[in-house]
Amino acid sequence: MTTAGTAPAGSVGRVETRRATLFTQDQPLILESGQRLAPVEVAYETYGELNEQRSNAVFIHHALTGDAHAAGYHEGATRPGWWDNFIGPGKPVDTDRLFVVCANLLGGCMGTTGPASPNPETGDPYGLRFPLFTVGDLVNVHRALLRHLGIRRLLAAVGGSLGGMQALQWSIEHPDEVHSAVVVCSTARLSAQNIAFSAVAREAIMRDPNFHGGDYQRHGVRPDAGLSVARMMAHITYLSEEGMRRKFGRRLQDRESPRFGFDVDFQVESYLHHQGEAFLKRFDANSYLYLTRVMDYFDPFGDMVAAGAKLERVDTRFLVMSFDSDWRFDTAHSRDLVRILAAHRVPVTFREIASPHGHDSFLLEVPEYHRTVASFMRRMEAEAIGGVPGDGPGRV
Amino acid sequence: MTTAGTAPAGSVGRVETRRATLFTQDQPLILESGQRLAPVEVAYETYGELNEQRSNAVFIHHALTGDAHAAGYHEGATRPGWWDNFIGPGKPVDTDRLFVVCANLLGGCMGTTGPASPNPETGDPYGLRFPLFTVGDLVNVHRALLRHLGIRRLLAAVGGSLGGMQALQWSIEHPDEVHSAVVVCSTARLSAQNIAFSAVAREAIMRDPNFHGGDYQRHGVRPDAGLSVARMMAHITYLSEEGMRRKFGRRLQDRESPRFGFDVDFQVESYLHHQGEAFLKRFDANSYLYLTRVMDYFDPFGDMVAAGAKLERVDTRFLVMSFDSDWRFDTAHSRDLVRILAAHRVPVTFREIASPHGHDSFLLEVPEYHRTVASFMRRMEAEAIGGVPGDGPGRV
Repeated sequence: MTTAGTAPAGSVGRVETRRATLFTQDQPLILESGQRLAPVEVAYETYGELNEQRSNAVFIHHALTGDAHAAGYHEGATRPGWWDNFIGPGKPVDTDRLFVVCANLLGGCMGTTGPASPNPETGDPYGLRFPLFTVGDLVNVHRALLRHLGIRRLLAAVGGSLGGMQALQWSIEHPDEVHSAVVVCSTARLSAQNIAFSAVAREAIMRDPNFHGGDYQRHGVRPDAGLSVARMMAHITYLSEEGMRRKFGRRLQDRESPRFGFDVDFQVESYLHHQGEAFLKRFDANSYLYLTRVMDYFDPFGDMVAAGAKLERVDTRFLVMSFDSDWRFDTAHSRDLVRILAAHRVPVTFREIASPHGHDSFLLEVPEYHRTVASFMRRMEAEAIGGVPGDGPGRV
Repeated sequence: MTTAGTAPAGSVGRVETRRATLFTQDQPLILESGQRLAPVEVAYETYGELNEQRSNAVFIHHALTGDAHAAGYHEGATRPGWWDNFIGPGKPVDTDRLFVVCANLLGGCMGTTGPASPNPETGDPYGLRFPLFTVGDLVNVHRALLRHLGIRRLLAAVGGSLGGMQALQWSIEHPDEVHSAVVVCSTARLSAQNIAFSAVAREAIMRDPNFHGGDYQRHGVRPDAGLSVARMMAHITYLSEEGMRRKFGRRLQDRESPRFGFDVDFQVESYLHHQGEAFLKRFDANSYLYLTRVMDYFDPFGDMVAAGAKLERVDTRFLVMSFDSDWRFDTAHSRDLVRILAAHRVPVTFREIASPHGHDSFLLEVPEYHRTVASFMRRMEAEAIGGVPGDGPGRV
């Protein structure tokens, strides 16, 4: 905890979210579906300094419910960005040497154009008239932001879960733009069970009578019941059974003996209720629908012939990591990805990390995980930046 | 499939559900909480013949959403009872030699008194004014039914999941009434993750605006959205990830290429939707609340000193079984139970069965599982019935 202006050591300090209009009616975003979208405004943050060669940029891709505020402190805030333990001076993504960009996703609700934005044709929020997009579209918006910042090539694309899918997609489609990719507890395709959980979450939202076919803003209501149920369920999949046992067990909330009723009684119920309620303050139901659906359809190796031809050109260096207690995207997902990359001679390092915290581990300070990323980033820096003539003692 | 009156070989044939009023205002059911409940009517079925010594009775305990109709065919029905592959002539619970009783649970909605029944004080359905009850109360209602049928002692109490909890509870509290217990993919206590899933399911129901605090019947509506979401989510936990992969994978429903939208597109979505909808036709939301909550609170070994004293008197023979792909109540749950029983010298046989079908395996015809139960039942029969003088060549 800190107060504004006194960010703790190891923090990037005071930051603010900026916005850029990257696509306009004249130059709209052409989605992979062929549909056109404009305007597209993107909320983003940067940390650290871009070097003279513009070769030290790292893109941080957020997951389903993240935002552009990955590190440091907003004015007046006592809590830092969502990946502050990972990004900062001396941290795995070291802002003493790297220039870091993080942007809210297309379709999101934290500053980037999404279903809650006004549809220029009507002035009303898009709702479900917002076009469906792909992970490729998410990446194309990120690429436009990079161009806007004057950067042609990333030292690394880094992300966990849906964030990892973006790093993977970027590297496969535009390997010349990505020196390396860090793909954490992610997957190249959702399993039937993964899709099932997302389907039920969407069902909870869409069957909420306040959903109004996605036009709840116009009705002055919100499908809060559905969205909080969706979030509570998703949260179970982010923790491991063992982690939940350690954290909550069968302990009761503020009581010695059970109250025997339908009110919250067990600690785990109280925790999930809190998660469900807190989520409503910061997230939009339609964004939840779009960003879960984009994951369901992600399948870059679905057509293996086409994918194989692309992979032959990929020399992006991959670090793929999983956590042994993650059951949302378990180690088998990462192994499948690694197998495909390696079969096409894409340079890939794979590590499974022990952690009891399930899928959420990628957001936590797990020492072996952080050490592995830090060491990989140093190696990539030496390769890509140390390799630039005149770059100093880093040159091998 | 069969038509009425031509039940296939191996079936108990035509059956019907009977009803008995087991508790009245004069002789109410005294719940473990001390509350009184009357009247209590119970729906039940029986298969096979009770022998002269009344020593061949087997009680089948149903799980969360089961009912009294475990085997055979109701008049005009083309589908048999829910455990027809398990109960019948020559089947693991062999009705050629055993007398089988199955009853809808207290708090259920298939003929036994529950929250949808009229509250005698008001004439309206109880709703959430129905008293909360325990697994011990479920068993006490079963015991009253046995007395009604003139049976003092069971050859076996048999059940899966919540059914197994009842068999366990009966054996611990009244071992003189239960020669043996078959406890399949069950547990002696829910984990935090188990409770979490149930809590989210209840949240989906109770936050449905049509729930009306449990008084939806009086409002002429039903919390169908919440109940179907609850059922869809629960269904994911009944199947294994591997089973879902084999059954659905990422295949699309009736299409070659994805439609890219929020309608049902993947087969697994279609399946879950169907499960959610079909469930509404046969189940009551309040019963779902009560019967999930009764599981949350079940913890017969929570006070191990008290439980230890009880277990010293237990000579019920246990067969405890789990399935290797079950993650609702995984093998660790069964092992914990077996460890506690064995530590108190309760005779117990444990088997983990290989099956890709997850928790649902207990309802399916898994050969090793059926063989193991059949052999155990034969052994129990030889012990308990073969031991009766004059019982013929079975006597050892």
